[in-house]
Amino acid sequence: MPPGSLEELGRRSRAAARVLATATTAVKNDALEFAADALGSGRAEILGANAADVARAEKSGATPAVVDRLRLSDARLDEMAKGLRAVAALADPVGQVVEGWVRPNGLAVRRVRVPLGVVGIVYENRPNVTSDAAGLCVKSGNAAFLRGSAGAIGSNKAITAALRSGIAKAGLPADCVLLVEDTRHDTVQEFVRLRGVIDCLVPRGGPALVALVVEHATVPYVIDGDGNCHVYIDADADLDVAERIVVNAKTQRPSVCNAMETLLVHRAIAPVALPRFAAALEGVELVGDEATRAVLPEVGVATETDFATEFLGLRLSVAVVDDLDGALDHIARYSTGHSEAIVTRDYEAARRFVREVDAAAVLVNASTRFVDGGELGLGAEIGISTQKLHARGPMGLCELTSVKFVIEGDGQIRA
Amino acid sequence: MPPGSLEELGRRSRAAARVLATATTAVKNDALEFAADALGSGRAEILGANAADVARAEKSGATPAVVDRLRLSDARLDEMAKGLRAVAALADPVGQVVEGWVRPNGLAVRRVRVPLGVVGIVYENRPNVTSDAAGLCVKSGNAAFLRGSAGAIGSNKAITAALRSGIAKAGLPADCVLLVEDTRHDTVQEFVRLRGVIDCLVPRGGPALVALVVEHATVPYVIDGDGNCHVYIDADADLDVAERIVVNAKTQRPSVCNAMETLLVHRAIAPVALPRFAAALEGVELVGDEATRAVLPEVGVATETDFATEFLGLRLSVAVVDDLDGALDHIARYSTGHSEAIVTRDYEAARRFVREVDAAAVLVNASTRFVDGGELGLGAEIGISTQKLHARGPMGLCELTSVKFVIEGDGQIRA
Repeated sequence: MPPGSLEELGRRSRAAARVLATATTAVKNDALEFAADALGSGRAEILGANAADVARAEKSGATPAVVDRLRLSDARLDEMAKGLRAVAALADPVGQVVEGWVRPNGLAVRRVRVPLGVVGIVYENRPNVTSDAAGLCVKSGNAAFLRGSAGAIGSNKAITAALRSGIAKAGLPADCVLLVEDTRHDTVQEFVRLRGVIDCLVPRGGPALVALVVEHATVPYVIDGDGNCHVYIDADADLDVAERIVVNAKTQRPSVCNAMETLLVHRAIAPVALPRFAAALEGVELVGDEATRAVLPEVGVATETDFATEFLGLRLSVAVVDDLDGALDHIARYSTGHSEAIVTRDYEAARRFVREVDAAAVLVNASTRFVDGGELGLGAEIGISTQKLHARGPMGLCELTSVKFVIEGDGQIRA
Repeated sequence: MPPGSLEELGRRSRAAARVLATATTAVKNDALEFAADALGSGRAEILGANAADVARAEKSGATPAVVDRLRLSDARLDEMAKGLRAVAALADPVGQVVEGWVRPNGLAVRRVRVPLGVVGIVYENRPNVTSDAAGLCVKSGNAAFLRGSAGAIGSNKAITAALRSGIAKAGLPADCVLLVEDTRHDTVQEFVRLRGVIDCLVPRGGPALVALVVEHATVPYVIDGDGNCHVYIDADADLDVAERIVVNAKTQRPSVCNAMETLLVHRAIAPVALPRFAAALEGVELVGDEATRAVLPEVGVATETDFATEFLGLRLSVAVVDDLDGALDHIARYSTGHSEAIVTRDYEAARRFVREVDAAAVLVNASTRFVDGGELGLGAEIGISTQKLHARGPMGLCELTSVKFVIEGDGQIRA
């Protein structure tokens, strides 16, 4: 086990996790505050390392979007530090009693939140994830075992060094945050197979990373998957509300997973509603089914692929449905189970939509853009789970914990 | 997609799950009651098919233990029917509001329990699992997609036919319970890769099955793993209580996962306690470390392997530890994270043990044998999870659900 090997790093991460698991909230908060301070005092080193990463990316012909995600600035660094302090201010989930009861034989049973242990994060070119993820892990009592991308390695090393110094200053093992510095592609596959080391893996990246995890991981993981989100405008919708939500869901930030990708409109209101929406969505390229194009002939043809695609940009698929059942069927067929919304004034339609749509989040008369840990009041999020196991929807601190049964008796034995 | 292919069966299972997800509790309870009735009225067919399975197993030289697990009787069939009725009597987790709040902008947010969808069960030669698992799945609104063993296929087919007829009588799709009848070994591997079909896989079997799932599964799963359970007798233990718990944890049913496999004794009481325990554990083969053998010279040597082994029989590893820290270290090293107990009258020792031991269940002054869904009051269990993600410890109906965010507004958009 050479020093710096994944196995050796894993051993160190587990050892740190065992200490961190029983650290008090006060000590963990100190660690986060000191880490935030260290991002400030390490500013020059971090921005210098980041400038080198950016120069390398530009030289290798990375797209402007990639370079933008990679680039840090004083303001972004301040955001990262502020994020750590905000997490320090959140309630500590560790030790929360989820439920408890007493059995007829007198055994007292309770289920208590405990840290997962080692949380592995595989992520791409966003150096802020290093600090955001580490903060959430440490607050929830988990060691953060980080595997960022080659393109951001300089930035990630500098950020990690700052975080580690802050954590050590609070008296916790610096290894509570540990970065894998070997960024050869093969190490991702090794990383996701560190069973017995990583208690929960959170891949933060695109479909290729998710596919790699699904195929190769032997450690437990939570998938933060695609958001092919729908907004359905019911016959009985208030069209002012509908228009406002449609515009917000599509254009307020089109590049994110909770943006609308398909608009479904009830046949009865299509002739009135579609022209209104099309005008309000100026700058968005619409593609539609036949019934949509009957109302909006200038709109392009939406293919099967369009309805199945998360555009993450200013393009929108539009379909006219016969009724609520048509909307539910369309969603059941194409949804990725992220966020689905209905706009209606009809009590029964709202109730059925909420009950029958199978997604992490179902919204009535509200923009899909609210499906976010911060917006929903979870404080911060480590991702948005599109799977049903363990966590579903925005994952906050509680989703970075497990539970333990604590059973207290007075000598009870089983008959 | 030929009829009977795994893909076709999967499609049918998903379709049934979509209907079952919104079935009322009353209808699901009817289905379970009618299924229980059908086990009774189908008694002759089921026992006949089972007799053929048993004859085949005996002819092929199966061990008596295997044959015993396979064999049904009037009494066992009655137990299965009783089990279905007991599950019908449990509270329905679907629709439970786990938590809810209102955001400053007026959005009402709640997290609601919903079925997982399709629950896949891979299991070995216990035909009763067919009925037990199906009952828990249906009650929690999930389609049960069952892949039993070749050795029990006749029994499983007969039981499934009975269950399906009961479910159909209640007006639900018979496919709410679906058995894979192709039991060639390869179909297990195919089964665990039905991503998009199976929402949660629960493998019920030994280490070989678990290893296959960990290596090959692409569907989410919950592992019901080994129980290398420890009981630690602290210096300050009441020795009467300790003896009672030690005997119960080891001998009340030694073949199960929550039985004790290693006894740890504090050095200060070893000279008194060990002879007492050895006498009380008559019929159990003890193997011990050096310090144990200094007190009990007739005891065999416990190897590293012994301490790491779940014997599932009348053999017990014994070690003497210097103090609570020694016990915690031993457990951290060898535990499979199932059930760990301390016997003590020392408040601080109990508190530290509960906090520092990382296991699904931690017990104070109670037998490890209580770590069971029925004993803890969950009503029934589909297994005992030894992983930290999604479910940990005994899994009842709630652990067969996911949650959905429901967000209700009045036209809110994100700024």
